[in-house]
Amino acid sequence: MIHSAPTNLRYLILADGSFGPEESKTANACIRYTPERVVGVIDSRLAGKTAHEVLGFGGSIPVVASLEEGLPLGPNALLVGIAPAGGQLPEEWIRVIGRAIDRGLHIWSGLHSFVGDVPELKASAERRGVEIHDLRRPPAKLPVSNGRVRSVVATVILTVGTDCNIGKMTTQLQLLGGLRKKGIRTSFAATGQTGILIEGRGIGVDAVVADFIGGAAESLVLECAKDSDLVLVEGQGSIIHPSYSGVTYGLLHGSLPHAQVMCAQPTRKAINRCEWVKIPPLADFIRLSEQAAAPLRPAPVIAVALNTYDLSDDAARAAIESVRRETGLPATDPVRFDTAPIVDAIERFHLARPR
Amino acid sequence: MIHSAPTNLRYLILADGSFGPEESKTANACIRYTPERVVGVIDSRLAGKTAHEVLGFGGSIPVVASLEEGLPLGPNALLVGIAPAGGQLPEEWIRVIGRAIDRGLHIWSGLHSFVGDVPELKASAERRGVEIHDLRRPPAKLPVSNGRVRSVVATVILTVGTDCNIGKMTTQLQLLGGLRKKGIRTSFAATGQTGILIEGRGIGVDAVVADFIGGAAESLVLECAKDSDLVLVEGQGSIIHPSYSGVTYGLLHGSLPHAQVMCAQPTRKAINRCEWVKIPPLADFIRLSEQAAAPLRPAPVIAVALNTYDLSDDAARAAIESVRRETGLPATDPVRFDTAPIVDAIERFHLARPR
Repeated sequence: MIHSAPTNLRYLILADGSFGPEESKTANACIRYTPERVVGVIDSRLAGKTAHEVLGFGGSIPVVASLEEGLPLGPNALLVGIAPAGGQLPEEWIRVIGRAIDRGLHIWSGLHSFVGDVPELKASAERRGVEIHDLRRPPAKLPVSNGRVRSVVATVILTVGTDCNIGKMTTQLQLLGGLRKKGIRTSFAATGQTGILIEGRGIGVDAVVADFIGGAAESLVLECAKDSDLVLVEGQGSIIHPSYSGVTYGLLHGSLPHAQVMCAQPTRKAINRCEWVKIPPLADFIRLSEQAAAPLRPAPVIAVALNTYDLSDDAARAAIESVRRETGLPATDPVRFDTAPIVDAIERFHLARPR
Repeated sequence: MIHSAPTNLRYLILADGSFGPEESKTANACIRYTPERVVGVIDSRLAGKTAHEVLGFGGSIPVVASLEEGLPLGPNALLVGIAPAGGQLPEEWIRVIGRAIDRGLHIWSGLHSFVGDVPELKASAERRGVEIHDLRRPPAKLPVSNGRVRSVVATVILTVGTDCNIGKMTTQLQLLGGLRKKGIRTSFAATGQTGILIEGRGIGVDAVVADFIGGAAESLVLECAKDSDLVLVEGQGSIIHPSYSGVTYGLLHGSLPHAQVMCAQPTRKAINRCEWVKIPPLADFIRLSEQAAAPLRPAPVIAVALNTYDLSDDAARAAIESVRRETGLPATDPVRFDTAPIVDAIERFHLARPR
């Protein structure tokens, strides 16, 4: 269950052909939250640029054309920095990973296809004394969830969203600091490979056997609640996502949050790569989310986190104001603007909750 | 993906300590639908009784006290006939399975813990030339679902239910004959170990990696639709089940049914073994089920299948009449009474559906 990311990591991120604001989710989050660990990014299309030029953040972290060009930057690990749908390991990446192992780099990967299960990579890692960390590899033994989490005294907040890759992890990470500053002992329950990499603890709930999704979520919340009064659970997928709704629901009904924070992107009108699924108006979607939770434990949506990266400042402010009016809820873009509206909403909810 | 159950199987069912109308789901379904394959049932508590005395069906199939007492009945296989929550393989069963292998019996199991992964059992099976069939072992490669199933011309009907073990598989199996008699080419898409065992084809959707639940459902429907005009998909779990709702939703959004048949038990007021989750009134629950499907593809509930095994005939008829009035839908107990109300509802829906 515990995947720990030591602080002396210096990694080169493999994101060849996919580094960019919308695609390389793991890479981007690591650059945002742990830039001190990132020495460079491999993407031959963008070699010569900096992370800031590509993403709008990340400072002078350089993009290089190949593993070999990144070695002079002094990495001690290679991070497989994107997570393609289905998580299969492309053939050419196996070759790059093999060369990285030969150069003595440890491997960190969040793919469904475990790097450590590729016989030739496993063998060369052992020969070279190199560690392979497959962040999605589930704990050996998981229970089936059955509501044990109801005994937890801590307040549990789950981020949910209209789609994948819309801000469910980022929102929780942005809120952490503000909540801790208010003196609330707050923990982050990471449920995906990127969150686990950043937090150093978690379970990749989308990688466990289907019957145990809820059990994984339950175990993680029980663990995180041991040393905190507020648990921020990283949501996954969407209740209307044709590929991943099973994970979304298992996580919702396994973690049994007391409240939800809704993540949405004003410009996204349909599910990414499944455009035939239209995203309902936000107020309707919020009602659907509350109805999905209610038969097990009512979990009101108490705030909205908007992802406005593709809007101008003015348009972003207008979108937030419009959502406030439509839903009657506090709203902000917690990356672009002040997190206070959501932090305050969570604090109010936490303090007012009957125990 | 294809698990085939040859017709010359003669199995002894291992259900020690759990043979009964409510517990040994796999055993009971095999006795109901393929009694010609069952030579006996092992349950030391009930040795000397017949299946009919224990279940109310199954005729003179004897219950014996042990594997050794069952051998004179002439089995050529041992079927692990119950599926405990979480599916772990108890130690004492490993010993019984080991003895069965020593006697040359093939092994069929629907547990999450694969018999073929227990090193000593695998080794003795190889030594003895005996086959181990783990029905839940997922196909080696599954896609992520993305709505490919929308290209299917066949009408897809999914059974859903208020809880686990309430009749979702049994209802579909009961309907098959009536629909085929009407001249509709109908197939059964088995999604659990028992259905796979009976049908000889299917994928155990609760045993795949969570991200691929929908993909498993989608692959199965695409396969079944190749040679039929109507696909009856075996539902799993419940949208309000704290342990298994992830599987339920993944299956719903992966198979994208055109209509749902709701399975319920009039006497069940809360989720079995999670009594803190109350089952909403049936009309409300039907609305929840329709709302869960609607954002992807509207799937009206077109009939109700009641499980009335624990009611008298009069009480059962009254319960059915009451559900008819409450929901305005055709209803019956498809095991106890005529299946016609549901068969006719499906036929009407199938013929009227715009294509």
